[in-house]
Amino acid sequence: MTKFDYQKINELIHSRIRLAIMSVLVNLEEADFTYLKQKVNTTDGNLSIHLSKLENAGYISVNKIFEDKKPRSLYKLTKTGRESFEAYIEHLEEIIKTGNRQDV
Amino acid sequence: MTKFDYQKINELIHSRIRLAIMSVLVNLEEADFTYLKQKVNTTDGNLSIHLSKLENAGYISVNKIFEDKKPRSLYKLTKTGRESFEAYIEHLEEIIKTGNRQDV
Repeated sequence: MTKFDYQKINELIHSRIRLAIMSVLVNLEEADFTYLKQKVNTTDGNLSIHLSKLENAGYISVNKIFEDKKPRSLYKLTKTGRESFEAYIEHLEEIIKTGNRQDV
Repeated sequence: MTKFDYQKINELIHSRIRLAIMSVLVNLEEADFTYLKQKVNTTDGNLSIHLSKLENAGYISVNKIFEDKKPRSLYKLTKTGRESFEAYIEHLEEIIKTGNRQDV
């Protein structure tokens, strides 16, 4: 076991698109589907797949509402999601920081 | 275009195992195959595949030597590899830092 063990990196968060989604949400109360799609720059289908994965992991929650008779999906980080994201970042920082030759 | 565009994350470095390999190498003059394998905790085959990808990208170089008549492969980051790794980290930090609500 070493800190560089790649399997210790949270795969659910690490995927580029899910990392981008989580990074947008971590600074917001909530964001809707269209906003997220524009921010992470992907397609409806791709975004849906990854939002579902994050929702299934308990990292985000969705609130489906109607506004002017149009459906709108609002996403936000759960407490678990926020804690997991913070743990992920902390772990990543530990791995990637340079200049710590003695730990290699 | 937004800073959260997931396609802007350097995919070649971002893969968990390649990120682990690069992170080990960034603090060392060089490391041999066995050492890397133990640090990132993977198989010979998997490590070989990802070392080749990094070598083909010009991020690492390999020096094959014989020691006591046994072959030994020594890997190190190239200048391009080090610069790309630093750019990757800088970009990642920009995305994942929390508390910058105005940029979201």
